[in-house]
Amino acid sequence: MMVLRPDGYFLWEQVCRATDEMFKENGIDNTAFPLFIPERLLQKEAKHIEHFKAEVAWVTHGGESELEERLAVRPTSETIMYESVAKWVRSWRDLPMKLNQWNNVVRWEFKHPTPFLRTREFYWNEGHSIYATEEETIKEREIILGIYSKILRELLALPYILGRKTEQEKFAGGVATYSLEMIMPDGKAVQGPDWHFDGQNFAKVFDIMFLNKDGSKAYAWQSTYAITTRVIGIMIAVHGDDRGLVIPPMMSRIQVVIVPIYRNENKGEVLEAAGKIMDSLAKRVRVRLDDRDEYSPGWKFNEWELKGVPLRLELGAREIAAGKVIAVRRDTGEKAELAMGGVEKQVQRLLKRMQKEMYKRAAKALKAMTSSAYTYAAVKKLLEDKKGFVLAPWCGSDECENKVGEETGAKITNIPLDQSKLKGNCIYCGKPAKHMANFARSY
Amino acid sequence: MMVLRPDGYFLWEQVCRATDEMFKENGIDNTAFPLFIPERLLQKEAKHIEHFKAEVAWVTHGGESELEERLAVRPTSETIMYESVAKWVRSWRDLPMKLNQWNNVVRWEFKHPTPFLRTREFYWNEGHSIYATEEETIKEREIILGIYSKILRELLALPYILGRKTEQEKFAGGVATYSLEMIMPDGKAVQGPDWHFDGQNFAKVFDIMFLNKDGSKAYAWQSTYAITTRVIGIMIAVHGDDRGLVIPPMMSRIQVVIVPIYRNENKGEVLEAAGKIMDSLAKRVRVRLDDRDEYSPGWKFNEWELKGVPLRLELGAREIAAGKVIAVRRDTGEKAELAMGGVEKQVQRLLKRMQKEMYKRAAKALKAMTSSAYTYAAVKKLLEDKKGFVLAPWCGSDECENKVGEETGAKITNIPLDQSKLKGNCIYCGKPAKHMANFARSY
Repeated sequence: MMVLRPDGYFLWEQVCRATDEMFKENGIDNTAFPLFIPERLLQKEAKHIEHFKAEVAWVTHGGESELEERLAVRPTSETIMYESVAKWVRSWRDLPMKLNQWNNVVRWEFKHPTPFLRTREFYWNEGHSIYATEEETIKEREIILGIYSKILRELLALPYILGRKTEQEKFAGGVATYSLEMIMPDGKAVQGPDWHFDGQNFAKVFDIMFLNKDGSKAYAWQSTYAITTRVIGIMIAVHGDDRGLVIPPMMSRIQVVIVPIYRNENKGEVLEAAGKIMDSLAKRVRVRLDDRDEYSPGWKFNEWELKGVPLRLELGAREIAAGKVIAVRRDTGEKAELAMGGVEKQVQRLLKRMQKEMYKRAAKALKAMTSSAYTYAAVKKLLEDKKGFVLAPWCGSDECENKVGEETGAKITNIPLDQSKLKGNCIYCGKPAKHMANFARSY
Repeated sequence: MMVLRPDGYFLWEQVCRATDEMFKENGIDNTAFPLFIPERLLQKEAKHIEHFKAEVAWVTHGGESELEERLAVRPTSETIMYESVAKWVRSWRDLPMKLNQWNNVVRWEFKHPTPFLRTREFYWNEGHSIYATEEETIKEREIILGIYSKILRELLALPYILGRKTEQEKFAGGVATYSLEMIMPDGKAVQGPDWHFDGQNFAKVFDIMFLNKDGSKAYAWQSTYAITTRVIGIMIAVHGDDRGLVIPPMMSRIQVVIVPIYRNENKGEVLEAAGKIMDSLAKRVRVRLDDRDEYSPGWKFNEWELKGVPLRLELGAREIAAGKVIAVRRDTGEKAELAMGGVEKQVQRLLKRMQKEMYKRAAKALKAMTSSAYTYAAVKKLLEDKKGFVLAPWCGSDECENKVGEETGAKITNIPLDQSKLKGNCIYCGKPAKHMANFARSY
């Protein structure tokens, strides 16, 4: 399980705040449901429990007493939510009902834990929508994945590939899963935020029915969606370098650090100038003046580089004399001289440019890690040599998906929505291809 | 455990948002620590575990496997946090460290659960500060209780009495507890937000030491503090009436509801006028136009009264002709005619006045529920007849506190900071009084 200190938790708060704002604009309401789910409820949907039961943390005792029924610490909240939802949905007037929770969930996985990427407790949003029609439900996909992709692109500076999961990889209990997939610097794929079309599966199990306008009774249609703390891990891996973190400006708790460079004889003068710059920046960016006397400028440079602060401003006697300040970008190391007059606008421009360029570099890397191939031999070679996503024709069968998985260690991470390259035969069985699928080793 | 639907969760979000803003202004940082606490950690502080062990929900299994060590679902996070804090605090430069979490905790109480007031899972902030000196730590009390009292007064429209808990009622593991105590309409006392001075107790148990400026090593000083979802329950009980909820304007998700009154022949005209009022209000207040055709105005009045919406605007042909709109206050039922021109400013003024008057009425009720007495007979009579707080002289001994409790069912809810009425002898033993203490039956 993770411990998130202030700088780390701020990153998650940034994601939550921006996402929540867009949720609210789209009429999605926050709620809170119990942390514990009675075992009998969790078991109601067969595929759902089948998937989660190996990973559930079970509460068996309250104080000294053994409980009559075991309680699952929520791995996800469909079952506990839908029992209530079934009571709330009565008529078409109650729909759509777009509920969300920002909370923590526990999945007792036995794989090697990695901070942010795979942890037994993680933080997420779980959106749960209930609609009167299939059509409306399916329309929601673009809205939600639009929100998530904006968060990835504009906040986290992360590019992605949008696609559908295979039948075997989709959400347990749902009909179809769509996700934003990414690549880590080691060439492994990693799944980002997702949206699930659940059809009427849960509605039938939990009896979520409503009276339609025409007087008939009908089962509701449902969707679920999530963004998790994992995106923080991806952001750290994709942008970081050998000197430490590189945090995109939109995400960083401290966007600009001012490091004054002085000797005893000019300390007052330099600190005064640094203070003025601090004041002019404070209204526009998240800035910190590092005036700690006990550390040298060099020590401070290292510390803030390690922490990934996007922009460092250096200021000494020479700069003051010239009416300038030196700006150093964390991502490229580039230095620029900024005029002290109007420094705040120049800093804002630099941060904006940096945010854009970080995204562009990551997008270029993703492109370089994406190949396509039309034979099994070529796919295998690419998976070995180049890694990343290998887009290849697939017949759509579980069997071929599994065989390729066993033989190469790569699974189908997604079937991209963009199918413009579809041609040829399944790389494994040779039958005509139904889809171009992305094969990749993954987290 | 509670299920919070959108209107209910909004109330808690309002408290969180306003409190968090003030926390941030005071340099308090949000963090996140694991939900589960290993049993060995929870047991480190003897009084702490003694108090909580009967209420802990224990996780014993992960998937099919029994865990080697039981895990407590956090009842509070001192023990899991301070193990990390001990690693982070090295020097005086690291202090103060002001950490906070907004999260959920579980206490498996066997008392009768009451929504918001006593639930097995509840939501709260848990603030944990680490200071270099006792003096700084104690200074924090006014800051934190200042923030909490502002939330009670200005958002929840709740008056309170500020005081210290007795030794028997203080936080388990701490040195002293200060709290904001309130009275419910049934005359029972209920504890609101609190702040605990923990001295060096946890620092010694968890080895939180730092290198001082003079080169000596010292144990840190600590405090903790919390506001919980309970305040929502108190707000509902204090302000509600026989027709349902009465939500203070600052808290309500919908502050103003517009109910158009029309017949078929003038529907278009009335809805157009209502829409205009809606538009002029929307930028300044949280407003909803209830244009549902399937319900009558009377049905709508009842529904919004039940839900506690502070202000209802009624608008029909007569009002339109007169250039007016009728405003009805939820708290008093008072009706006022507002001119359509500049309606938004009049509405804002009304909401502001309503918020203030709701507080004043509650403050008056609290005053009426507060008595003082100097003999045991008088105290007992007041507890029976008038209920509420009975302020009376007390020698300070556990024994007298317990005896009064056994004989009257009233405990000492707090020792008010205001001791201006101190005189006479302990109502139970007759020895000279050390404090004036508030005796009350309580939740």
